[in-house]
Amino acid sequence: MLSKNKIKFINSLRLKKFRDINSMFIAEGNKLVNEIISSELTIHFLIYTNKWGGHLKASNNIKELIETDETGIKKISQLKTPPNVIAVVQFPEYSFSISEISSQLSLVLDDIQDPGNLGTIIRLANWFGIENIICSKNTVDMFNPKVVQASMGALLRVKLHYLDLLNFFKDIQSNSDIPIYGTYMNGENIYKSQLSDKGIIVMGNEGNGISSGIEPFITNKIAILNFITGQQEPESLNVAVATGIILSEFKRKAN
Amino acid sequence: MLSKNKIKFINSLRLKKFRDINSMFIAEGNKLVNEIISSELTIHFLIYTNKWGGHLKASNNIKELIETDETGIKKISQLKTPPNVIAVVQFPEYSFSISEISSQLSLVLDDIQDPGNLGTIIRLANWFGIENIICSKNTVDMFNPKVVQASMGALLRVKLHYLDLLNFFKDIQSNSDIPIYGTYMNGENIYKSQLSDKGIIVMGNEGNGISSGIEPFITNKIAILNFITGQQEPESLNVAVATGIILSEFKRKAN
Repeated sequence: MLSKNKIKFINSLRLKKFRDINSMFIAEGNKLVNEIISSELTIHFLIYTNKWGGHLKASNNIKELIETDETGIKKISQLKTPPNVIAVVQFPEYSFSISEISSQLSLVLDDIQDPGNLGTIIRLANWFGIENIICSKNTVDMFNPKVVQASMGALLRVKLHYLDLLNFFKDIQSNSDIPIYGTYMNGENIYKSQLSDKGIIVMGNEGNGISSGIEPFITNKIAILNFITGQQEPESLNVAVATGIILSEFKRKAN
Repeated sequence: MLSKNKIKFINSLRLKKFRDINSMFIAEGNKLVNEIISSELTIHFLIYTNKWGGHLKASNNIKELIETDETGIKKISQLKTPPNVIAVVQFPEYSFSISEISSQLSLVLDDIQDPGNLGTIIRLANWFGIENIICSKNTVDMFNPKVVQASMGALLRVKLHYLDLLNFFKDIQSNSDIPIYGTYMNGENIYKSQLSDKGIIVMGNEGNGISSGIEPFITNKIAILNFITGQQEPESLNVAVATGIILSEFKRKAN
């Protein structure tokens, strides 16, 4: 049964503070929850209605199964259309390795604020085989419910590390010489640039771009050329869309 | 003064039905409204507070200036943070030309539902120099307030045509032999495809892709390669992100 205390506890996880204290987040909906069940993550509560198709027993992976009705699900769901299944999941644990990052292509997010943008970027990272995303401390939380829903299962397959970016870049610089790419209006045309299959791509904040404290670490300034004709206001691309175009360009060359 | 009748009229424009009857839409916020003032579009009402920086007189372009206060703006704004200026704007008028479309690269949208996706696609079209977007009758309305806000000024610089797609494709087929591209899981790797600088790129619905009635018109099936390793559920990219990657790939080759 879905007790009042459980409802209260689960709803507390809407806030980052309580997610962090408990190391738990909420995942809603059949597709996402099924992916979590097949993963190695621990599910503390699996709450479902009799309309849910899954047949499961409590196991090491699933601590507690709770059947409820649509009224019960509504009390804990944050979706417009409440799903038939919701899971309360233990944070994934994974290691952060400078030497791994020095041998791959990775993303750095410098204060991405919009949960939909972060979710889309996680999906893109997964699509293009990026294993690590380093986020500034002010980047929106990866376990924000809107990020979890927007990232789909990709959140389970990409490692996100929330770090002090200045320290991270100092670390990278003293341990490797991989290029650090950043997008600037006056950067080099990405279509004609030499793009490495190892390196770091920094994506800046939606309104302000890459912060001035990070700029000195950028070794390669790049730009996505626009094809706008005539006099116009300077335009910009949405950061998630720009990330997609840039990752595609890096990977097509490495391919 | 912002009369009760005007408030009622302006709020009626939230609905497509009343936008279509009056051929008017709403634009909010300084940047967008300034772009509209500089354009050739007719502004029926320009509603502003004393915090707005603009100094204007009514002219051919602006039929009526209405000063109000924050309480007044709140009554007609649909944004979380009401802006200092809102314009009620006449629909742009432009011609639809099969011969123009036969000589360019254009987008066809087959039932795009999400206003944010349509707005992002309009911005991308503008960025990559696409002049015409043909939308199926069931694609979300271009003057939906969320589309207007998401597309930024790009809505003023790209022509959108809402047409019966079957008739459109028959028309194109009998008037030209430009390629018609569509994205499919089993399509040809876009990174290795011959991509024309004239043609039509069809983007499908968020959930269902390109509809079966349209598929026979597709002459070139293409695919954005993924770099996901290991066994996984089939993944897809958000349609606006996919549009960005595809347009970038077409334009880099034409460039």
